Amino acid sequence: MMKCMHLLVFVLTPLLLCPPGIGGGQVLVFPVDGSHWINMKVLVEELHARGHNITVIVPSDSWYINKNSSYYNSIQIEGASFWTQIKMSFELIVKCSEMHYHVSNMIHEMFQDSRLMQSLQASEYDLVLTDPATGGGVLLAHRLGLPLVLNVRWTLQGEGHFAIAPSPLSYVPFPGSELTDNMSFIERVQNVLIYFLGKAQLAIASYHYTSICQQYFGSDADLLTLTQGADIWLMRNDFVFEFPRPTMPNVVYMGGFQCKPPKPLPTDLEEFVQSSGEHGVIIMSLGTIFGELPHEITEEIAAAFAQLPQKVIWRHRGKRPASLGNNTLLVKWMPQNDLLGHPKTRAFVAHGGTNGIQEAIYHGVPIVGLPLVFDQPDNLSRMKAKGVAKIVDIATMDRNTFLQAVQEVLHDPSYRIKMQHLSRLHRDQPMKPLDRAMFWIEFVMRHKGAAHLRTESYKMPWYAYHSVDVIVVLFAFVSLVVLCTTAIVKYMCYKIRRRIKKKHKENRWRKSQIYKNYY
Amino acid sequence: MMKCMHLLVFVLTPLLLCPPGIGGGQVLVFPVDGSHWINMKVLVEELHARGHNITVIVPSDSWYINKNSSYYNSIQIEGASFWTQIKMSFELIVKCSEMHYHVSNMIHEMFQDSRLMQSLQASEYDLVLTDPATGGGVLLAHRLGLPLVLNVRWTLQGEGHFAIAPSPLSYVPFPGSELTDNMSFIERVQNVLIYFLGKAQLAIASYHYTSICQQYFGSDADLLTLTQGADIWLMRNDFVFEFPRPTMPNVVYMGGFQCKPPKPLPTDLEEFVQSSGEHGVIIMSLGTIFGELPHEITEEIAAAFAQLPQKVIWRHRGKRPASLGNNTLLVKWMPQNDLLGHPKTRAFVAHGGTNGIQEAIYHGVPIVGLPLVFDQPDNLSRMKAKGVAKIVDIATMDRNTFLQAVQEVLHDPSYRIKMQHLSRLHRDQPMKPLDRAMFWIEFVMRHKGAAHLRTESYKMPWYAYHSVDVIVVLFAFVSLVVLCTTAIVKYMCYKIRRRIKKKHKENRWRKSQIYKNYY
Repeated sequence: MMKCMHLLVFVLTPLLLCPPGIGGGQVLVFPVDGSHWINMKVLVEELHARGHNITVIVPSDSWYINKNSSYYNSIQIEGASFWTQIKMSFELIVKCSEMHYHVSNMIHEMFQDSRLMQSLQASEYDLVLTDPATGGGVLLAHRLGLPLVLNVRWTLQGEGHFAIAPSPLSYVPFPGSELTDNMSFIERVQNVLIYFLGKAQLAIASYHYTSICQQYFGSDADLLTLTQGADIWLMRNDFVFEFPRPTMPNVVYMGGFQCKPPKPLPTDLEEFVQSSGEHGVIIMSLGTIFGELPHEITEEIAAAFAQLPQKVIWRHRGKRPASLGNNTLLVKWMPQNDLLGHPKTRAFVAHGGTNGIQEAIYHGVPIVGLPLVFDQPDNLSRMKAKGVAKIVDIATMDRNTFLQAVQEVLHDPSYRIKMQHLSRLHRDQPMKPLDRAMFWIEFVMRHKGAAHLRTESYKMPWYAYHSVDVIVVLFAFVSLVVLCTTAIVKYMCYKIRRRIKKKHKENRWRKSQIYKNYY
Repeated sequence: MMKCMHLLVFVLTPLLLCPPGIGGGQVLVFPVDGSHWINMKVLVEELHARGHNITVIVPSDSWYINKNSSYYNSIQIEGASFWTQIKMSFELIVKCSEMHYHVSNMIHEMFQDSRLMQSLQASEYDLVLTDPATGGGVLLAHRLGLPLVLNVRWTLQGEGHFAIAPSPLSYVPFPGSELTDNMSFIERVQNVLIYFLGKAQLAIASYHYTSICQQYFGSDADLLTLTQGADIWLMRNDFVFEFPRPTMPNVVYMGGFQCKPPKPLPTDLEEFVQSSGEHGVIIMSLGTIFGELPHEITEEIAAAFAQLPQKVIWRHRGKRPASLGNNTLLVKWMPQNDLLGHPKTRAFVAHGGTNGIQEAIYHGVPIVGLPLVFDQPDNLSRMKAKGVAKIVDIATMDRNTFLQAVQEVLHDPSYRIKMQHLSRLHRDQPMKPLDRAMFWIEFVMRHKGAAHLRTESYKMPWYAYHSVDVIVVLFAFVSLVVLCTTAIVKYMCYKIRRRIKKKHKENRWRKSQIYKNYY
């Protein structure tokens, strides 16, 4: 494994046509492949449009990331992307741990390659922009001593906030729990148990980075601490999507930063949409990774769609289902944003990826959710709690339950009303999420970081952070005072009692003497 | 006391000349008198400029708040402002409790006045804007069922964040502690002790509102919970001023919202400033409440100033000190913002009120601090930790220690360099703090609140919020499992041992039989 990891580095420097802008910054981007790159690309394109020079580190077998681009340089490293092998696999979670093993090996090889490291140092980058779903970019930024900006929703330590913001488990549902911010006692117990389980799982993933952390950043360094040292967290959600929870000053919410007003549809698609008449259209897409569902399920979905008066546009890459109705159009790809923004769109059948949900919120289209893996069940449980989504369990669904769910979302007006309310809230921001993200990236360039927004409390040992040592000392002190006081009081009581007894004795003796003399 | 509290209400409605704007909202303002009104006025003026109609509730004996204004209506209520009596007093903290007693009485009288309450209901306000340093505005908003926007730095529960955001005492210094975010063990013990002390003090202040809360908002209502229900917290600081700490999504930072570029000085003042030559000027002001210091202290300060080559402009309202030098100009009032923004200004001698510090940060002028009461020691300890202020203890100072402090700030370039760095950070924001405040006030108007940004976790009982019940149950369960397992294991051990013994016995018996037969 290690053998094929040697690095063939060649720096591609196409002629970059930078528009005149406020830019001129040097940004080093360490992306994560797959759907994560879709997000990162939005930032990279906008940074380019603002006149910054961008260098992207691209694994040679990358699935999504282009080696040749007119708007970024690339540094190619070989054999590092694991996504090619795991795409379409339902065993993603298990495979993730292997991915981290690969990334940590890749980084180790990079750090050993002194020519590469010297050329990176010489390039005088202003910052590293990375997605901390793997540890690579974080380690690279620390190794190069550069400010660090995260484009984040997940870290190895779970949902981004859990790595830096206090997250009381009484009202902050742990990732994967599918709970809301309003939990019963049993649910709160569940949340605490899932927290411990999750922590253990995540520790396993982080473990792959331990040796490289200790080798380069000191014996007590670990990936969590290095991640917590990031300057700015560009968080890919907001509080229209997420439940309200504590946050930190260096978290910048840019949820929906990729959303745009719809462009006109291609003529044939527009004709199909218009043919739906008053009934409107339903669109269905299960995102970039999951193009194909098991055949039995596709048949059930197709059969359900066939019973609807609506037209359906279904992004489907597998075999054509036999039960497909005339009202359903299968497409390999669709202009999802333009379709969601079309006035005839009535509902969105989705797997619940963050991007799709943000676009649905932006355009105010209610959701029928078919959650598969990762954050999808959590995302959809949030939408369900806000009354804008109906969730269908893919494991137990059939044409009837699916049809019922779609019809409920179509005919119960509360779904659409609530989603349009969320849309209004989301759009009503002092500045566009993408502009806000750009501002803070450029802020880090201008000021060489954003240390004033970042607490250093993560450097404290856990018992100090949680004041356990203080509580123990105060408790010991109070106990000591109570013990001493009790002892003193007891001793005094004893003394007093003895004196009383003695006096009694004396009195009795005197009395007896008096009596003696008297009688 | 209660007798003089009857309310003479007359609503003044001057002809409001609203500029054409995006506005048209109806804002009910319940201010706090004194320096708090200076802040609130900035918001009220800007709201007026944006075309909103503002109604201000003004106590008849108000010290700062004008009854007649061209940009707001006023509802006058008699005998409620206590500030007139306590201004200039060093016993402010003690008197504060009395102030809360008065405010709660005033609010009670207001609620009883059905004509006033009906007229307030009829006015269909969009929101209540208030400073929660007293509880009046919060109670009024809940009584009228209106969305609530706080212009806040302090609540009765201490520094604003402590009422809503998790505040780990290991790195969040409790108000009044004068600690930083980097504490030794002893300091952390101190912080925890001050926390408990502070909580007790604040409970006393809140106590005055208990009966009115229970009467109007249910038997378990209290002021803290009602305050926590606010939609937006416009916080009068930011993280250039404050140490980084956890915050909440509905906290909007508007620190320095009153700061403006300097206007030219009046001719005579400009001449005086220019006469300082290369040495520049020092300006001194102890804010709006404290115009006069004890005579001995003024003499020492004057004598110290007299030894400097700089010119000094001193806002001073008492007797002219005998030791005053020719280089010092006493003024009753000064254009503080314009002077701080003047290129010849070298240092700012200040008491450490939030407004003055924000202006010093905005203009990049280092501080010599003479903290007196309230948040002033805390504010200055923050500036000291950031290396932009030298603090002088007013209780022990003399001309020498004061002179030394001023000279250190003048001649050690790090003070100015660091303060100008803070100034650059403060000015580098995606939008101006005042515009941000306006956006969120208008957001609340547009959406009838901002419930999606506000956690409702404050409604949980404390043991549920802190998951104490969950921990107890889990601990009990684990204990039970351990006990049962131990009991079972013990019982089995006992059984096994007995069986072994029995076998031994049998064996021995058999052996003995065998031996018997054998011999």
